Amino acid sequence: MKKLLLAFSLLLFTVTAFSQENTTSNSDEDALFIREIYDAALLKGRAYDWLNYMTNQIGGRLSGSPQAASAVEYTRQMMDTMGMDVTLQPCIVPHWVRGNKEQARVVNSKSMGTVELDVLALGNSVGTSDYGITAPVIEVKSLQEVMDLGKEGVSGKIVFYNRPMDATQVKTFNAYGGAADQRVHGAAVAANYGAIGAIVRSLTLRTDDIPHTGSTVYNQLNEGVEPIPVVAVSTMDADLLSDIIENDKEVDLFFRTNCQMLKPEPSYNVIGEIKGSEFPNEIILIGGHLDSWDVATGAHDDGAGCAHSMDVYQVLKRLNYQPKRTIRVVMFMNEENGLAGAKEYARVSNEKNEYHLTAIESDRGGFSPRGFTMQAKPDVFPIKSKKVIKWLPLLRPYGLELEKGGSGADVSPLKSQGGLLFGLNPDSQRYFDYHHTPIDVWDAVNKRELQLGVAAITSLVYLIDKYGL
Amino acid sequence: MKKLLLAFSLLLFTVTAFSQENTTSNSDEDALFIREIYDAALLKGRAYDWLNYMTNQIGGRLSGSPQAASAVEYTRQMMDTMGMDVTLQPCIVPHWVRGNKEQARVVNSKSMGTVELDVLALGNSVGTSDYGITAPVIEVKSLQEVMDLGKEGVSGKIVFYNRPMDATQVKTFNAYGGAADQRVHGAAVAANYGAIGAIVRSLTLRTDDIPHTGSTVYNQLNEGVEPIPVVAVSTMDADLLSDIIENDKEVDLFFRTNCQMLKPEPSYNVIGEIKGSEFPNEIILIGGHLDSWDVATGAHDDGAGCAHSMDVYQVLKRLNYQPKRTIRVVMFMNEENGLAGAKEYARVSNEKNEYHLTAIESDRGGFSPRGFTMQAKPDVFPIKSKKVIKWLPLLRPYGLELEKGGSGADVSPLKSQGGLLFGLNPDSQRYFDYHHTPIDVWDAVNKRELQLGVAAITSLVYLIDKYGL
Repeated sequence: MKKLLLAFSLLLFTVTAFSQENTTSNSDEDALFIREIYDAALLKGRAYDWLNYMTNQIGGRLSGSPQAASAVEYTRQMMDTMGMDVTLQPCIVPHWVRGNKEQARVVNSKSMGTVELDVLALGNSVGTSDYGITAPVIEVKSLQEVMDLGKEGVSGKIVFYNRPMDATQVKTFNAYGGAADQRVHGAAVAANYGAIGAIVRSLTLRTDDIPHTGSTVYNQLNEGVEPIPVVAVSTMDADLLSDIIENDKEVDLFFRTNCQMLKPEPSYNVIGEIKGSEFPNEIILIGGHLDSWDVATGAHDDGAGCAHSMDVYQVLKRLNYQPKRTIRVVMFMNEENGLAGAKEYARVSNEKNEYHLTAIESDRGGFSPRGFTMQAKPDVFPIKSKKVIKWLPLLRPYGLELEKGGSGADVSPLKSQGGLLFGLNPDSQRYFDYHHTPIDVWDAVNKRELQLGVAAITSLVYLIDKYGL
Repeated sequence: MKKLLLAFSLLLFTVTAFSQENTTSNSDEDALFIREIYDAALLKGRAYDWLNYMTNQIGGRLSGSPQAASAVEYTRQMMDTMGMDVTLQPCIVPHWVRGNKEQARVVNSKSMGTVELDVLALGNSVGTSDYGITAPVIEVKSLQEVMDLGKEGVSGKIVFYNRPMDATQVKTFNAYGGAADQRVHGAAVAANYGAIGAIVRSLTLRTDDIPHTGSTVYNQLNEGVEPIPVVAVSTMDADLLSDIIENDKEVDLFFRTNCQMLKPEPSYNVIGEIKGSEFPNEIILIGGHLDSWDVATGAHDDGAGCAHSMDVYQVLKRLNYQPKRTIRVVMFMNEENGLAGAKEYARVSNEKNEYHLTAIESDRGGFSPRGFTMQAKPDVFPIKSKKVIKWLPLLRPYGLELEKGGSGADVSPLKSQGGLLFGLNPDSQRYFDYHHTPIDVWDAVNKRELQLGVAAITSLVYLIDKYGL
């Protein structure tokens, strides 16, 4: 019921705000300009071609890799060509490499013999020795279960985290959020109790044979505890492994990885800027992240967000729109395994006493847009979001709604500057089918859906630039 | 501005209605039950498996084909197994067959020589002779242009209709509606002016090498004029042909088809029914169409709608819901090229003085649902739609909106009975990528998106059954 009342109050609020202020002739002008934005994005958008280059010509763009450097140079050139002032903002990124193809198998199943499993090392993971590791495997459904088992139950074993994403969540990012602790902290927690390795069910709602990589971190390791290697296993093989464990009770698992963390490398955020004509100190940021996983070509995650962001400016320029406020298009580096670029961007921005009126991130894929999530500091959220909700009648004809929620990992550090931050909110049903896998490719992105994302963000940028927040 | 005002009045209306009537404790109960519907559809839905069978085991189900008969028997069994009273309602359907693979080529381009084109005969089309037809080709953008050219410009030629779907339409069905007259009536209109054949740009927003078939009709032929053969050409080859015509001015086109219309065949609508406990004379119909094109396996069009419709009942039964009104799940036959099933269903229903309180059709694919369109006779629309808009706060948390618009070709004849009709409204961006082509396959349907469609329809059926209209 709480949700219903919220929905109701949002509606009431919308109507009130709209009837008070938005029935001026500006609405006509705005509706017409937004229509022009959609026409330009759908007919003359460049996002899909840029994404083609980033995925099919450059490929996977893991931080510290030659491909990441190539993506920096490519997007620098594209923004420079459009006449933006482009700077490369240095940052130091972790440099993790996967090494040889991973191997994993059940070695002594009484019922099934030797069973090969589809796995991928998790990003940042340490590797096994050349001989791999072999140990009894125990299945758990949570970090808590490992803590409850304690050293007695876990020591010397490989911990198999197998809590699936909750399929009843209509918003798949909520399902992801409810299961990701296993991938992020599972290895460290298991290590604290003496485990020698971990294997994690892939974070997807599909049942298939594709393992999903992603970041693991060791910051929860107890003092003196060494990190242990960890791999993700496909959902089909997670189900199979679970069945084998249930049948056989005692099962040994083998896996071998030779991934490693090399020394940090210099890299860059790519920042394209056009100074505002009236309020140059009010910054409107639009961004995505350049880096992707190595095994993916990073089409939805987050080539789409980079292509969206650059195309927003391309569309405004094509329509001869002169921004009153400063437009800054940012390609962030290292979202996937460290956020080095986002941290450095926020640090420098705060040092310069900049004010980001807004920062809009696209990092939920290139699917059909359904609106935006909004976040801000509690003291400014009600006033600023009210202004935006007033614009709903201009956005709803394009299927866009507004809701409270996170913006994006790269821009959320800017919240402290007091602006209103947004995340593009595309349809989320297919996102985790592709996320951090080799099938996150250009062909999985629909051209029109990508273009509609550009148009949605551009429309919001136009309204914010024109009316402020 | 008119659209803005409409949006505004809808909002105001919603709020008023909601605050007046919907703050009773029923809302809590309804919200909980709708949550149960979503859980059941997402965890225990059968739609995806049924769709797998219909597409991968049965295949293309063109009216009059053995596969269409197989689909009748399959869905009869599925509904019978669920305990519905199933009847086969006879209807007589056209029986068109494609014959050998079509051939088409430019035969005398000065610049490019002989150029093969990807084509498919349009459904219902007559074939060429075994030798095919060869004639000068002229490009037009509309039926009107053919009329303007007259016999002098058209006689003895092949008319090439090449007006693309309008990419600036955010709702792709509007873009389809704006271009489909070329496919439906282009051959007949060209024949009236002496053309000997027609070739039509495929109805899709993509540029690719896949021709899209679909229905053509000859009911606009003048008296004494013979029908002429017509094919659809892929958008890439349409662009190429247009370029060749522009360069060469005089170009001859050859194409050969040996499709033909055989004698009509008996077939069936499949009707599953559960009598309502309180108002058995108020019928709630949920339906899709069983037939598809021969070259497609008809996954989105309209296997998805059939699977949706049967699964709505499966979900209600799983939740032990006892309908107060009569639930009727209908698999219509022959939507694609004649609507024989829909016409017969409406005829029999009217003859029996039945009353369809509502009829909900799913025939826009198995994509992520965004709501419903509603239609009714003008005298009842305001009252009945008002009741439904009151339910928006229960539907919006699932991303569902309501708008005025058509229901579906199979159920719209029931409008005369005075009920409120609905069409499921999934995201439309990808629909015409697959429509009437060999790539409209099971893999192109996302399991969760299909399941969410089931949940959306079931939620609406629940509210209508509980509260009436």
